[in-house]
Amino acid sequence: MNATHRPPVTVTVNETSYRWPLRPVVVVCIDGGDPRYLRRYLAEGAVPHIAHFISQGFAGVAEGSMPSFTCPNNMSMITGTPTSKHGISGNFYLDTATWQPVVMTGPELLRGDTVIARFAAAGAKVVSITAKDKLRRQLAKGLDVSQGHVSFSSEFADKCTMAENGIENVIEWLGMGKPGMYSMELSLFVLEAGLKLLRERRPDLLFLSLTDFVQHKWAPEEADARRFYERLDDLFGRLAAEDITLALTADHGMSDKSNAAGEPNVIWLQDVLDARFGKDQTIVICPITDAFVAHHGALGGFVRVWSRGKVTARQIIEHIGGVDGIELALDKATACRMFDMPMDREADVAVVAREDTCIGASAKDHDLSGLKGHRLRTHGGVSEAKVPFILSRPLNDAYKAKAASTPLKSWQIFDYAINGTV
Amino acid sequence: MNATHRPPVTVTVNETSYRWPLRPVVVVCIDGGDPRYLRRYLAEGAVPHIAHFISQGFAGVAEGSMPSFTCPNNMSMITGTPTSKHGISGNFYLDTATWQPVVMTGPELLRGDTVIARFAAAGAKVVSITAKDKLRRQLAKGLDVSQGHVSFSSEFADKCTMAENGIENVIEWLGMGKPGMYSMELSLFVLEAGLKLLRERRPDLLFLSLTDFVQHKWAPEEADARRFYERLDDLFGRLAAEDITLALTADHGMSDKSNAAGEPNVIWLQDVLDARFGKDQTIVICPITDAFVAHHGALGGFVRVWSRGKVTARQIIEHIGGVDGIELALDKATACRMFDMPMDREADVAVVAREDTCIGASAKDHDLSGLKGHRLRTHGGVSEAKVPFILSRPLNDAYKAKAASTPLKSWQIFDYAINGTV
Repeated sequence: MNATHRPPVTVTVNETSYRWPLRPVVVVCIDGGDPRYLRRYLAEGAVPHIAHFISQGFAGVAEGSMPSFTCPNNMSMITGTPTSKHGISGNFYLDTATWQPVVMTGPELLRGDTVIARFAAAGAKVVSITAKDKLRRQLAKGLDVSQGHVSFSSEFADKCTMAENGIENVIEWLGMGKPGMYSMELSLFVLEAGLKLLRERRPDLLFLSLTDFVQHKWAPEEADARRFYERLDDLFGRLAAEDITLALTADHGMSDKSNAAGEPNVIWLQDVLDARFGKDQTIVICPITDAFVAHHGALGGFVRVWSRGKVTARQIIEHIGGVDGIELALDKATACRMFDMPMDREADVAVVAREDTCIGASAKDHDLSGLKGHRLRTHGGVSEAKVPFILSRPLNDAYKAKAASTPLKSWQIFDYAINGTV
Repeated sequence: MNATHRPPVTVTVNETSYRWPLRPVVVVCIDGGDPRYLRRYLAEGAVPHIAHFISQGFAGVAEGSMPSFTCPNNMSMITGTPTSKHGISGNFYLDTATWQPVVMTGPELLRGDTVIARFAAAGAKVVSITAKDKLRRQLAKGLDVSQGHVSFSSEFADKCTMAENGIENVIEWLGMGKPGMYSMELSLFVLEAGLKLLRERRPDLLFLSLTDFVQHKWAPEEADARRFYERLDDLFGRLAAEDITLALTADHGMSDKSNAAGEPNVIWLQDVLDARFGKDQTIVICPITDAFVAHHGALGGFVRVWSRGKVTARQIIEHIGGVDGIELALDKATACRMFDMPMDREADVAVVAREDTCIGASAKDHDLSGLKGHRLRTHGGVSEAKVPFILSRPLNDAYKAKAASTPLKSWQIFDYAINGTV
C-alpha cells in the first residue's frame, strides 16, 4: 500500500465532512453513461476492468439529479449536494425581470463550495479535467491554480496557460493530438491526461468529466459504442493500477427518441403553446441547449415554461398535460419538491417527456441537420436519471449501512469514494 | 457447508429461471419496513445481526411496486414480476360493468404463477407464513399443501387444518400464545414459526410476511418501534444461524402524515370531486382498505378515481391537480407506464399524495377513532416506495453486474436470493 501519510484532517464542504483521502481518489463522470451500455458490455465480457471493480468493490444504480442534464449533475457531484442546494438546474433559466435567458454554466451562479476547491484550500493537490470547456470553468469555482492545481478541458487543450489552467503545452506533454469536438477522443484525452498527471504528480483528488457524443450517436448494440467502452475500460484499468480509489458514475442516461421510421419523436412545445395561448404569452426554455448541439439539436427530455403573466401555470399544465409524449407537467412547487430543484430558478411549469419522446421549443429554432440520418438519442427526463455508481474498492461497514438504508444518489459520489471505502 | 445436494434443476416462473436453491432460502417481507427505521437502528447499533448481513452480504435500497401497498408488493415478490404482469394493484378495483368495487386480495385475480408453487411442483418443500390471512390465500395460489408444504397466517394460527394449511395445532406446536391483530407479536409469531419449521423440516423456500402495525403506530425514534426491531433482529440472527440464505425486504415504507398539532393531513377526495362535479359522477376507491384499518383509518397515499361517464379524466386531473397535498394526478396510461401497473385494473385517474399528506374518499366513510391520539402514519405513494433489500450472503459476480447496471426492484428478491448469492 502506498497511502499518503498525513495528519488526520477533516474537510467540511457544504455540511458534509470528508476525511483526508487514504490514497488518490479519482472520480470519473461518464457523460451519458446509461446503465444499458454497461449491462450489455458486462454480459459480453467487453469491459473486464469495470467487471473487476464491480466484483471486488462496490456497485449499484444511483439516482441522478433532475433534470438529467450534464451541468446540473456535474455540479451535484462536485459540490456533493442536490440541485436545490447548488442552484444549477440546467444550462439556462429565464430572468423574469428582463425576460431574457440567463446562462447558468459559469461559476457565478453556483452556490456553495466545490469539494476540490475546499480540499485544495486545505492543502490537497487537486485536478479537474473536462471534455468541454463550459463545464471546466464551473467545476473550477474557487480553485486557485497557481498553487499547483490543474484545471483544463480537452476542448482547449492547445490553449492552456499556467495562469488559467495550472498547466501548459498539454498537447506536447501528453503526446496525443487535439481531439475534435465530435469524437470519442475528446473523452479519452481527459482520461489519458488524468492518468499522466496521476503518475507524475500523484494528486489527492481528480475529477475527470467526459462527453456524451458517443452515447448520443450510438446505441449500446452499435460497434462504435462498444469500441468506446473498451477504450474507457482499458483506461480505467490503467488508472486503477496506480493504487487509487476509482469511482465511476454518469451525469445522466440516454434514450432512443425516434420512431420506427427513424424520425425523432418531437413535441414542439412553444408551437403548441402559441397555438393555444397566442404568441409571446409563454416562453419555453430548453435547458439542454449549449454551443454544441449537432448530435441532439438541443432536444431533450425536460423543458421549462414561463408565463408572461396572462396565462396561469394551471392553464399551461391543463393544456400540455394531455399532449401525447408528455410524461409530466408540474407546477413549480411540485417539480422542485419531487426533483429536489431550486425554486428561484424554476419555471412556472416543468415539463418531462416520455422515454421515447423529446421536447423542443419551436420547430424553426432547432437544427436537426446534424443528426445526419442517425436516430435521435437524448436525455433530460426521469427515464434518463438512473446512473451507474461503481467504486473500485469495497465499502467500509459504515457506508454499507448507509447504502442499505438511504437511496443512492450520484451527488454522493465523492462522499462514498472518499469516506466510504476501506 | 450443509448445502442440499440434488441434481441441477432449473425452475422457470413467469419467464424468470431460478436454479435449485443451494441451501434454504428465507425471504422476509418486513411490512412497512421503511429504510428510516434501519437507518436509525443501524446507527445506534441496535440491530447487530442485520448489520452483519449488510457487512458480509449484500444490501441496497430497492424500488418497491406502486402503489406502495401490502398486497401489490407481496404479489410482486412471490411472482417475481411487476404489478403490470401479476395484476394485483391494490386491495380493490372498480368493475365498470357493475360499478362495484372488486376485491383483489384473493388468488383468483392473480396472474401468473408464484415462485413457491412452481418450486413445490418441481419437488421442493415450501413454506409461506403471513401475519394476516387475507395475504395467505393469495400467496398460496396453486400450492397443494397436501404434499407437505405449509401455508398459514398467525391471524388464524388457532384454526389451521392439514387440508387447508398443511399444519395443525400451531399454537401448541409453537408454544406461543395467539397474538392479537394489533400487536407486534403477530409478526414475531410468523418468524418464530418459520424458524421452527426450518429446524424441524428444513424446507427449500420460505416466504415470511409480517404486518405493519408497529410502523403505522410508531416512528423510528419511538421506543416501541426500536423494541420491535430488536426482536426482529434477534429472530433474523437465529434464522441465519441455520445455514440459509436470508433475504430481507419490505412491501413499502411509512411516512408521517400529520401536522404540527398532530392532526392528520387528509384530502377527502370524494368530497372534493362531488363539490365540483356533483354527486355520483366520480367514484374514489381507496385501495389500502381492508378489514383491519384501525391504525390508519383506510387513509393512504394513493387512490383511484373513476368517472361515471360525464366527467373526463382530464377534467378530474385539472380539478384535483391543483389541490394542496396532491403530488401527482395521472391519467390511466401515464400512471400505468410510470409505475408499471396493469391497465385493465387502473382507474381513469390515479392520484398520489405528497409525503406529508394522505387521501381518503368522504370524511363520513373513514373512522379515525382507532388512531387514539397517535399521529397518522401511512403509505401508498411514491414517497413510501423505497425499501431495504438485504441478503445475508454476498452476491455472485453475475448478480453484482446485474445490480451495477439494472435498477434494483423489490420484486427481484427471490431472483437475487436464489440465483444471485454465492
